[in-house]
Amino acid sequence: MDKKNIGIGLIGLGVIGGKVAGVLLERGESLSEEVGQPIILRKIKVLEQDLSRPQAQEMEPHLFTTDEDEFFNTPGMDIVIELIGGEEPALTYQKKALLAGKHVITANKEIIAKHGAELAAMAQKQNVSLSYEAAVGGGIPLIMPFKRDLVANEIKGIYAIINGTTNYLLTSMSREDVDFASALKQAQKLGYAEADPKNDIEGIDSKYKLAILASLAFRSRIHPDDIYCEGVSRLSSRDFRYAKEMGYVIKLLALAKQSDGSIEVRVHPVCLPEDDFLAKVDGVYNAILVEGDLIGKVTFLGEGAGPLPTSSAVIADVVQVARDIVLGTVCRPVSRLQLDKKIKKMSEIVTRYFIRMNIADSAGVLAQIAKVLGDNNISIASAIQKEADEETKTAEIVIMTHPSPEKGIIQAVDELNRLDAVKEVNNFIRVEV
Amino acid sequence: MDKKNIGIGLIGLGVIGGKVAGVLLERGESLSEEVGQPIILRKIKVLEQDLSRPQAQEMEPHLFTTDEDEFFNTPGMDIVIELIGGEEPALTYQKKALLAGKHVITANKEIIAKHGAELAAMAQKQNVSLSYEAAVGGGIPLIMPFKRDLVANEIKGIYAIINGTTNYLLTSMSREDVDFASALKQAQKLGYAEADPKNDIEGIDSKYKLAILASLAFRSRIHPDDIYCEGVSRLSSRDFRYAKEMGYVIKLLALAKQSDGSIEVRVHPVCLPEDDFLAKVDGVYNAILVEGDLIGKVTFLGEGAGPLPTSSAVIADVVQVARDIVLGTVCRPVSRLQLDKKIKKMSEIVTRYFIRMNIADSAGVLAQIAKVLGDNNISIASAIQKEADEETKTAEIVIMTHPSPEKGIIQAVDELNRLDAVKEVNNFIRVEV
Repeated sequence: MDKKNIGIGLIGLGVIGGKVAGVLLERGESLSEEVGQPIILRKIKVLEQDLSRPQAQEMEPHLFTTDEDEFFNTPGMDIVIELIGGEEPALTYQKKALLAGKHVITANKEIIAKHGAELAAMAQKQNVSLSYEAAVGGGIPLIMPFKRDLVANEIKGIYAIINGTTNYLLTSMSREDVDFASALKQAQKLGYAEADPKNDIEGIDSKYKLAILASLAFRSRIHPDDIYCEGVSRLSSRDFRYAKEMGYVIKLLALAKQSDGSIEVRVHPVCLPEDDFLAKVDGVYNAILVEGDLIGKVTFLGEGAGPLPTSSAVIADVVQVARDIVLGTVCRPVSRLQLDKKIKKMSEIVTRYFIRMNIADSAGVLAQIAKVLGDNNISIASAIQKEADEETKTAEIVIMTHPSPEKGIIQAVDELNRLDAVKEVNNFIRVEV
Repeated sequence: MDKKNIGIGLIGLGVIGGKVAGVLLERGESLSEEVGQPIILRKIKVLEQDLSRPQAQEMEPHLFTTDEDEFFNTPGMDIVIELIGGEEPALTYQKKALLAGKHVITANKEIIAKHGAELAAMAQKQNVSLSYEAAVGGGIPLIMPFKRDLVANEIKGIYAIINGTTNYLLTSMSREDVDFASALKQAQKLGYAEADPKNDIEGIDSKYKLAILASLAFRSRIHPDDIYCEGVSRLSSRDFRYAKEMGYVIKLLALAKQSDGSIEVRVHPVCLPEDDFLAKVDGVYNAILVEGDLIGKVTFLGEGAGPLPTSSAVIADVVQVARDIVLGTVCRPVSRLQLDKKIKKMSEIVTRYFIRMNIADSAGVLAQIAKVLGDNNISIASAIQKEADEETKTAEIVIMTHPSPEKGIIQAVDELNRLDAVKEVNNFIRVEV
């Protein structure tokens, strides 16, 4: 076999890109051995300001270009790794690479979630591959297990804690009994939350990742817009305290379930029983539980982000694609999509609910609340009522319901809020088991 | 591309074989879609007595043969799946299949652990593949993640609870405060332990699995005989009680570590801190923690055995091999083995120890014990001494040491046993964190 070099082009020299470049340069020899032919980093597309980074200083200057055309015209570049993140210009770069017949590897969850189907079709047409193991769960192997190891299974569900920042925040709130704002401030100080934390705390990051996993698991096309999404910012330390009292832990869960040809996909805070395995996943860790009809429940746990784990996944893709190039077989058959699956409306889901409200401390209030719930076919599983606050003459009550349709809960919460005796329904959190 | 059928031959119709045959027949269409060409189960090699099994009754009689020659002469058989277990005749069958140019898929951990290197070399020579995802961890993806997803990493360690039977037993002993014999009896009654439980409870099954994983992880050749192995039968409910008091949980751990070019591989009971993730893995579940220099710690958790999960892994291999056949590329490059790695002798390892002993209830005993430990350079981290038994005039003492060389511990235990004041050193358990 011809000992042709396999050339890599890298777009982006941020924390992830810098690490990937470092691994490609430092471990070039052992990676080449894994592949059977030399792997060569040929060119890195950078921004002017990247050139002053310490990583850039350590590398040969001829590796860098700030010029898009120069980058794409680099000779002998078989694989393009896009690591700049965000939608543009990353999408344009990926398309340009695919159209030029180059294999694309990316960690860009937003692009794969929104445009994955289009890009995969382009890659297929060009007889090249599109790989994105690093887009979900950092270094935790997830994409390839879905594409290969779980392929005999009908996937019943995915239950995932898939955003390290929010899991860190919720762990702090639970352990230290602090409110959301102070937990966020602390996390930002320690570098676990970004200055603009919107994508993480509003569940958008989780939504992108769930769209990718659910599309693979259900051999379907789940767009981020199909996913109900609710963040963590309205959680208060009181929710955590009451949940704990009832034996529950609050987590931000990305959930996808399939039954009878219809799919549920949603990201929102949930109460999990404290002895549930996912309830024990704390701090910045990610955990992804996959339920299949043959495997039962398999859980993947690890650091879901960070330059080192992410570079591990990117390099795994590089080795895989390079091996396929060596073997002359890059374009694997694509599973036929089942596009007829119905996505359930949020109003159709059925689950248990944790409802916390402030009520007037007077006779007959509980009866009024129970009547509203009963009228909406919601039955109470348990309740906690705390002694009233002398000053404000209000009491707090938390109700855990039996499984009820979301539609009924929304209606009931609305009616409860209109009762004179109910000061406010402070929160309701879905319960998953 | 020619729409050639891909033919499968199956050896064995036990609980696993029966399920694999069922999946191949029932999901033939969707599996064929995954592969791009039809997958056909052509022949099943059975024993006379298998023919009366309910599964056999449901399948077409022409599928079966009890004749070895007839089986191997089946036309159009590309892949042979061996699912009879044990060393012979399974090994002979696998070799026969490879020499006939057939791809081999197996769940046989004993054969892969003992003869994997030889079989892989045979497969390589014949330009066919040898796959064994089902040999370790049932349906949990492990073999392919090591071969592909973690390939950029230098693997530092594997810490695995990898035998469901022993984990079930130890969970019972811990929860129900029962002794080993009664836990085993109960597990046998419930079908979680075999009538002859030797392979499980003496750690042999774990040893085979660790040999396979460590060989992959360290790109080396770890033979089961290289692995120190100690089972769980000498654990008593008293060990669990004291460990708990000190904040530890007892598990059977399969452990492989690599540092400075030398390797530790061992299977034995350990004390794990109760907040350690592996300490929380209960019942028949398996958990495999892999530590790599890039990924950090990634844990795979799931049911490690049973016909459904195991068939999931076997079928994943079938699909992978069939895809490679379709693409005309079955023999992937094999990583160069690093055979110069030294395996540490057990006497060279350093860890912490939990030592439980019965002592005479008289003055100065603790001083004598402390002197023996001190003379062997073992320092005490904590100790529990219980009030003496009035009748026997003995007391029980449990000592947790700081990290100490195994050599010193063996020497110290020997010396302690020779002290008049020490009735017996009942147990010592290594501590891993």
